[in-house]
Amino acid sequence: MGLGVKATPFTYAAHALAAAAAVLVLVWCVHFRGGLALEAQNKNLIFNVHPVLMLIGYIILGSEAIMIYKVFPKLNHDTAKLTHLILHAIATVLGAFGIYCAFKYHNDSGIANLYSLHSWLGIGTISLYAIQWVFGFVTFFFPGAAPSVRRSALPWHALFGLFVYVLALATAELGFLEKLTFLESGGLDKYGAEAFLVNFTALVVVLFGASVVVAAVTPAHVEEPRGYAPIPIN
Amino acid sequence: MGLGVKATPFTYAAHALAAAAAVLVLVWCVHFRGGLALEAQNKNLIFNVHPVLMLIGYIILGSEAIMIYKVFPKLNHDTAKLTHLILHAIATVLGAFGIYCAFKYHNDSGIANLYSLHSWLGIGTISLYAIQWVFGFVTFFFPGAAPSVRRSALPWHALFGLFVYVLALATAELGFLEKLTFLESGGLDKYGAEAFLVNFTALVVVLFGASVVVAAVTPAHVEEPRGYAPIPIN
Repeated sequence: MGLGVKATPFTYAAHALAAAAAVLVLVWCVHFRGGLALEAQNKNLIFNVHPVLMLIGYIILGSEAIMIYKVFPKLNHDTAKLTHLILHAIATVLGAFGIYCAFKYHNDSGIANLYSLHSWLGIGTISLYAIQWVFGFVTFFFPGAAPSVRRSALPWHALFGLFVYVLALATAELGFLEKLTFLESGGLDKYGAEAFLVNFTALVVVLFGASVVVAAVTPAHVEEPRGYAPIPIN
Repeated sequence: MGLGVKATPFTYAAHALAAAAAVLVLVWCVHFRGGLALEAQNKNLIFNVHPVLMLIGYIILGSEAIMIYKVFPKLNHDTAKLTHLILHAIATVLGAFGIYCAFKYHNDSGIANLYSLHSWLGIGTISLYAIQWVFGFVTFFFPGAAPSVRRSALPWHALFGLFVYVLALATAELGFLEKLTFLESGGLDKYGAEAFLVNFTALVVVLFGASVVVAAVTPAHVEEPRGYAPIPIN
């Protein structure tokens, strides 16, 4: 794109917004919604694991995986690639477990599965995420494609990866809206503290995602403008 | 990005998906929801104008504005720029009127305004859209900034424009989910024809938006690979 800025400030913004989003989702699920549990009489506690794992385990870890080349530009390339691959693998597993928690909550509570746009996009997104991981592993890690193939595959890997990442963010936004709509139709104050907290969390996630995408598309180092040469010493 | 492909096939895909999305939203609002009206006893007909105008008037026209340089790569640059500017202006006005219809429906029916994430992101998006238009007008059209300023502003104009565009798509997805959730909580079959139609429309909009973004970031013409020269005649 040639934006003429480097990625570093956007990685700082992304980390600050990720920390804010993580705190906000925990305050929501623990303080307002009663806490987290994998087995409980109160099935809502099982549901609460879903947004926490999807945001902190899947989206935030996945974001760190995306930004690793920009957060540590001096890291050895093979180390950065291995970290990218491992972080995305952990994010996929935690995301899949977070989706399992939503199914468990539905099944334990007699709620229908897989009828909403949130669920459709969510299943689609994690499937594409896993497919993207396998293609990345085979093409760039083991056994690895021929250099010419890797060279032409890399920009598509990055573009498709960012598409799936933006889909994950959109699915999160749909999730915040869907859960809050259910709570509000059950009597929660539409202009109350919890409704505002959830909507502000969703807005922080939008800004966080935008920072991650800009950090991903801007270079780690900016080339000096043409025609400029540093003033020589002496 | 250096994707090594040109924009044209993605503009074809975008036009086909735009036509599909436009038909689907009309089938939904006219066939399933009873039609469109600006004044009516049945206030739901006033609401129906909202999704039709936001999708066809705002998102599809805005998408054509974004893609104009790739759809007609041989168009005179000043003509393309003027078309880009006029299409975005019409999209903004139709979008603002579509938002007015949602407010009118709420006010006529005694429904609260501006409590949902859909409404917050929607108001935010059309505001950013209008700000982006004014900045683009002043910088690139009249009075126009100095050439060096325009050169460094252009990639930011494109990146911020795509950010606002993706926000508009995300807001549309939230809108489909929110309206369908209301209808389902009022008794609409979660696995019925209308629910599937709305969710499929939302999926078509995702694919449409992805085609527009790829068409925007790929070049109108692909440079020949380095080291390649056409075989000379003779």
